[in-house]
Amino acid sequence: MRMVDLIEKKKAGGTLGREEISYFVRGLVKEEIPLYQASALLMAIVFRGMGEEETAILTEEMMKSGDVIDLTDIPGIKLDKHSTGGVGDKTSLSLMPLVASFGVKVAKMSGRGLGHTGGTLDKMESVPGTDVYLSEASFKEQVRKVGIAISGQTGEIDPADKKLYALRDVTSTVESIPLIASSIMSKKLASGSDAILLDVKYGRGAFMKDLPSARYLADFMIKIGRRLGRDVRAIISTMDEPLGRAVGNSLEVVEAIDTLKGRGPSDFTELVERAGGILLVQGKVAFDEEEGRKLIKKAIADGSGYRKLIELFAAQGGDVSYIENPGKFPKAKSVLPVISTKSGYVERIDGLAIGHAAMLLGAGREEVSSPIDHSAGIVLERKVGERVEAGEVLAYAHTDKEDSGPALREILSSYQIGAKEVLSPAIIAEYIHP
Amino acid sequence: MRMVDLIEKKKAGGTLGREEISYFVRGLVKEEIPLYQASALLMAIVFRGMGEEETAILTEEMMKSGDVIDLTDIPGIKLDKHSTGGVGDKTSLSLMPLVASFGVKVAKMSGRGLGHTGGTLDKMESVPGTDVYLSEASFKEQVRKVGIAISGQTGEIDPADKKLYALRDVTSTVESIPLIASSIMSKKLASGSDAILLDVKYGRGAFMKDLPSARYLADFMIKIGRRLGRDVRAIISTMDEPLGRAVGNSLEVVEAIDTLKGRGPSDFTELVERAGGILLVQGKVAFDEEEGRKLIKKAIADGSGYRKLIELFAAQGGDVSYIENPGKFPKAKSVLPVISTKSGYVERIDGLAIGHAAMLLGAGREEVSSPIDHSAGIVLERKVGERVEAGEVLAYAHTDKEDSGPALREILSSYQIGAKEVLSPAIIAEYIHP
Repeated sequence: MRMVDLIEKKKAGGTLGREEISYFVRGLVKEEIPLYQASALLMAIVFRGMGEEETAILTEEMMKSGDVIDLTDIPGIKLDKHSTGGVGDKTSLSLMPLVASFGVKVAKMSGRGLGHTGGTLDKMESVPGTDVYLSEASFKEQVRKVGIAISGQTGEIDPADKKLYALRDVTSTVESIPLIASSIMSKKLASGSDAILLDVKYGRGAFMKDLPSARYLADFMIKIGRRLGRDVRAIISTMDEPLGRAVGNSLEVVEAIDTLKGRGPSDFTELVERAGGILLVQGKVAFDEEEGRKLIKKAIADGSGYRKLIELFAAQGGDVSYIENPGKFPKAKSVLPVISTKSGYVERIDGLAIGHAAMLLGAGREEVSSPIDHSAGIVLERKVGERVEAGEVLAYAHTDKEDSGPALREILSSYQIGAKEVLSPAIIAEYIHP
Repeated sequence: MRMVDLIEKKKAGGTLGREEISYFVRGLVKEEIPLYQASALLMAIVFRGMGEEETAILTEEMMKSGDVIDLTDIPGIKLDKHSTGGVGDKTSLSLMPLVASFGVKVAKMSGRGLGHTGGTLDKMESVPGTDVYLSEASFKEQVRKVGIAISGQTGEIDPADKKLYALRDVTSTVESIPLIASSIMSKKLASGSDAILLDVKYGRGAFMKDLPSARYLADFMIKIGRRLGRDVRAIISTMDEPLGRAVGNSLEVVEAIDTLKGRGPSDFTELVERAGGILLVQGKVAFDEEEGRKLIKKAIADGSGYRKLIELFAAQGGDVSYIENPGKFPKAKSVLPVISTKSGYVERIDGLAIGHAAMLLGAGREEVSSPIDHSAGIVLERKVGERVEAGEVLAYAHTDKEDSGPALREILSSYQIGAKEVLSPAIIAEYIHP
């Protein structure tokens, strides 16, 4: 088999078979196939696409390129969720403890943040002492005993995806539904869960710019999951403004805690309740989404989600006094108001710009090796649909940096304010299930 | 400027500007741009194409990536020709001496053969002593004094093309009109001629499979040439069977000599006369193609083309007694007949298969470093349109190899013989000029 023939076939619009895809994925990981051939194939895929079965095979071969976590000896259904990433997305920290409080097992692998989106691991590290890299053995042991574990990748999960992802990033081959779908699904499948809930974001701040493409991606991943024997479902949620009000590591942890205490922002609470309801159906705790949602509301009201969060951090060595008393989190040196120059209704808040501003304030990384300031970030005082008067505060910037001018200007310009009353947008646009 | 943004732009169907193209070509040659980004851009170009001006800029930047031969201090018009490659294509060896015999200067850079097509340099080396690598100074000196020089590239001509060509070959990005056009034209322009005649082949044995795509390529190259101030014209010729009867290095040299003596095969003689007529117009020797063709016929009849061939080889150190007495060329150990199993008319001879068989017999290279047997090759006893009876000879295979079975079978199966009378095809389908 020759790589050039695979490229030729895909370029001509053909469908690659299992042997061909396996040859490509193995050769890539073993560095037997040069990257210039890999990138030519990726670009041909961008133009020609890949079919469902072809993508399912690619996903499976990518999954098999590294370690595959075996959770079968842990009794019960193991749940996972994945979000395509958004600004202010602290969903895992509220949602997964709530679900785990019903005895369903949560075995979640997360990542760090890069660029304008934050990573769950970075947020967890705001709580001093928290170990976010568990060995496979400790990971499984914690899932078994505590019912929930959130960890960075243990072992070598999906090395094919690491290589492809890095290559796609520098060759303008990121925007391809089959490549996005196989990248997400291969990692999720390698981490061993039985049921996965996908949160596919769309909007100006997200990968998918509109509802139809988000729906197409979600549908594609559900079908791949089904072909590979997993219960995959998806919600499509808007990313036209940041999720909740807090953006930045410890600020988001505090908001996640607030939400578990029933004091969260309405959009984020809505997302957590509905996604939780679906996960409880996938975990066979609830009969339908409505019942699941009621159970989640109950777990917020009676504090069982909050207690599970404490158990989670305690198991991973975190100092839970920070969770019990969020006032302990270190404060940024400066907390600077961003003042509205207009009166009116907030029509839109550019999530990408807010994410970028938070990075400038110290909350995110420009490069993989950049350090992070856990106290830095942004708290939105006004969200879409809310009224503001000129001279009132739109948001607060938390930072230790001396020159925060560019970030403050970016926050201000991310707000679009108009004269007409605007409805608060619904956070979940669709629920897609097989 | 970032390479990933160039890829993105082309992927989205945009047009690259001079700064961007220059950045790409320079970065590629300096090895500052990784090949995986170059190949992604090439694949995006395969799908999105390039405009005329965009391709002219690419051509110019490629040309400028290395040495550019300056022939301006040689008086008169300097002519060059380029064929897109074919089996049995010994055109340069007959055509260019004929043209040069009228005092027009011929400064031609040629290459070696690879795969199924032979190279002019390999053919010239059949004549013992011939030096096919002239220094730039000797090359120019010979053009000035003898009026004709044919040499391999002197100095570092068009290093960008070398890199791109090698990369395209292994990434399935060969078939792209703007990439083919810029590759051909950048090399031709770098070798300094004022006027260029392109011979664009089409048919099963050629790059371009049909007349419309050959016409499109020719037209594209003419326009690029005009933008860069050169008189570029093109003939479109068929490649449905090998050109002439001889395929293989010394066999082709003998056929070229025969043609200069008025005893060449009719298709090849037709091509030489018509192409020569056009070149004499480009060289301002003839008023129109018809007059040019008459002059070429005369230069065949009076032996002035033949004498110029002798001068050419003499100038480059070749032993001209071989040209004066072609019986001196070493014979292959075996000359094996390929016998027709059918009676009828030759409908088609697969040029690719004949080229491949000749390579198996020792006439061509499988790899750049393979040695070549100058005496090996094939002589076609029957061409398209000719009648053959079962038991008669279709072709002779000349070889030193012991196992010539596969080559003989390939020659036999390359002949398609039918019951109906077939017309000999016209060698030149079209003449395209500005």
